[in-house]
Amino acid sequence: MNVFLVFAHPERASFVGALRDVAEKTLREAGHQVVVSDLYAEGFGTATGAADFTARENPDYLNVGAEQAHAAEHDGFAPLIKRDMDRLADADLVILLFPMWWFSVPGILKAWIDSVLAYGVAYDFERTWNRGVYRGKRAMLAFTTGAPSAVFEPDGRSGDLERVLWPLHGGVLALCGFEVLAPHTAWAVPWIGHEGRQQALDDWADRLRGLESEQPLFFHRLEDFGEDRRLKTEVEPGTPAQHRSPRKHLP
Amino acid sequence: MNVFLVFAHPERASFVGALRDVAEKTLREAGHQVVVSDLYAEGFGTATGAADFTARENPDYLNVGAEQAHAAEHDGFAPLIKRDMDRLADADLVILLFPMWWFSVPGILKAWIDSVLAYGVAYDFERTWNRGVYRGKRAMLAFTTGAPSAVFEPDGRSGDLERVLWPLHGGVLALCGFEVLAPHTAWAVPWIGHEGRQQALDDWADRLRGLESEQPLFFHRLEDFGEDRRLKTEVEPGTPAQHRSPRKHLP
Repeated sequence: MNVFLVFAHPERASFVGALRDVAEKTLREAGHQVVVSDLYAEGFGTATGAADFTARENPDYLNVGAEQAHAAEHDGFAPLIKRDMDRLADADLVILLFPMWWFSVPGILKAWIDSVLAYGVAYDFERTWNRGVYRGKRAMLAFTTGAPSAVFEPDGRSGDLERVLWPLHGGVLALCGFEVLAPHTAWAVPWIGHEGRQQALDDWADRLRGLESEQPLFFHRLEDFGEDRRLKTEVEPGTPAQHRSPRKHLP
Repeated sequence: MNVFLVFAHPERASFVGALRDVAEKTLREAGHQVVVSDLYAEGFGTATGAADFTARENPDYLNVGAEQAHAAEHDGFAPLIKRDMDRLADADLVILLFPMWWFSVPGILKAWIDSVLAYGVAYDFERTWNRGVYRGKRAMLAFTTGAPSAVFEPDGRSGDLERVLWPLHGGVLALCGFEVLAPHTAWAVPWIGHEGRQQALDDWADRLRGLESEQPLFFHRLEDFGEDRRLKTEVEPGTPAQHRSPRKHLP
């Protein structure tokens, strides 16, 4: 299969860089094609906005979504963005590899998401979730943490990891139609010593070797929702973000 | 009070720009000081990394956290980052104002979080949550959406808004010690017409005039957790991310 690895760490010699090396080696040894976008090394540093476009519908007023739709029809995306759109189109599996910063991806990777998953290319109002552009492809998050796994247990200090990841799992990947594999986490990397890190690299290689037989996570299909965009009463909420319990923060 | 408004939209003439104008005007009329960081206009980059630092502990290997700790002790942050650290220190209320993109902040604002909320400045291992650096200050998210509110109801297609916002509310703001006010959302902005947008601006002004009497959202105090970093058995989970139900995505 074609694997597209998006690597977002400012230090090539970091442990996240070592995870990249293991992924490239392991997947190629298993007969897969691997292509890597190295966001820091390639200077993917521009803020999503005017610099995304080589052709504008309205040069005087920047509506990012409208310009994305225009660029999608007029080959108007900047070269690096267009290249990664093409890499997504060619991929069978997409891996986002990053250090978890502030319960999410680094800013550079969020900007990549904002720019590359453009309206008219990665989604439009008719093509989301199980009707999404990338249905049939798979995607996964692979990341390091500074904290140990306990803090991301359901009753842990940072909150349940599967709820922390919902904006990425649901709001980005599943919304675009990807089948989302369980995340791969290398926990507490600064604190586990050389042997611990070696073990984490071995675990990652093992995981990668078995990816093709994994079942993806569950997300609701559009058919589960009514005209009001809410789950039909007979459908039981089945994801980390949908529920029918009282809210805790909002009215 | 001193209000620090962080504005993250690429188009000054956008509706988010109009929300900024309303905030500046309304808060100043109420006698408050307002300072604005305009991330796009000021060229705040999205690549948290080497460019953050004017002094490095290790020029040959970039460990962002270690370099942040070093820079905090040696006045080694780039000028724009240092300026916003100072603005945070001076603020009584911080407002992050942005368009919601992909269930989160735009990449440029995530990079601002990664760079400005630096280790050794905004937190360290002794100073988090209710022992956080910014305790006594308040913070809130204010954002626009393309989607209507129904999709972010607990059983909505995008999942419960309070769970979607946990990485920002809990993982960023509350973790740094802020008292977090309820978010302010201007819903479905492209679809509500001129009158609807005028109403949304009026609603925002009304909200701002009453901010000082608002009660913040609930987050667990560190004392609620045991040595194992999990909620003590006698403590009832009280946030959108902590719970004791079965997980949906993870083992």
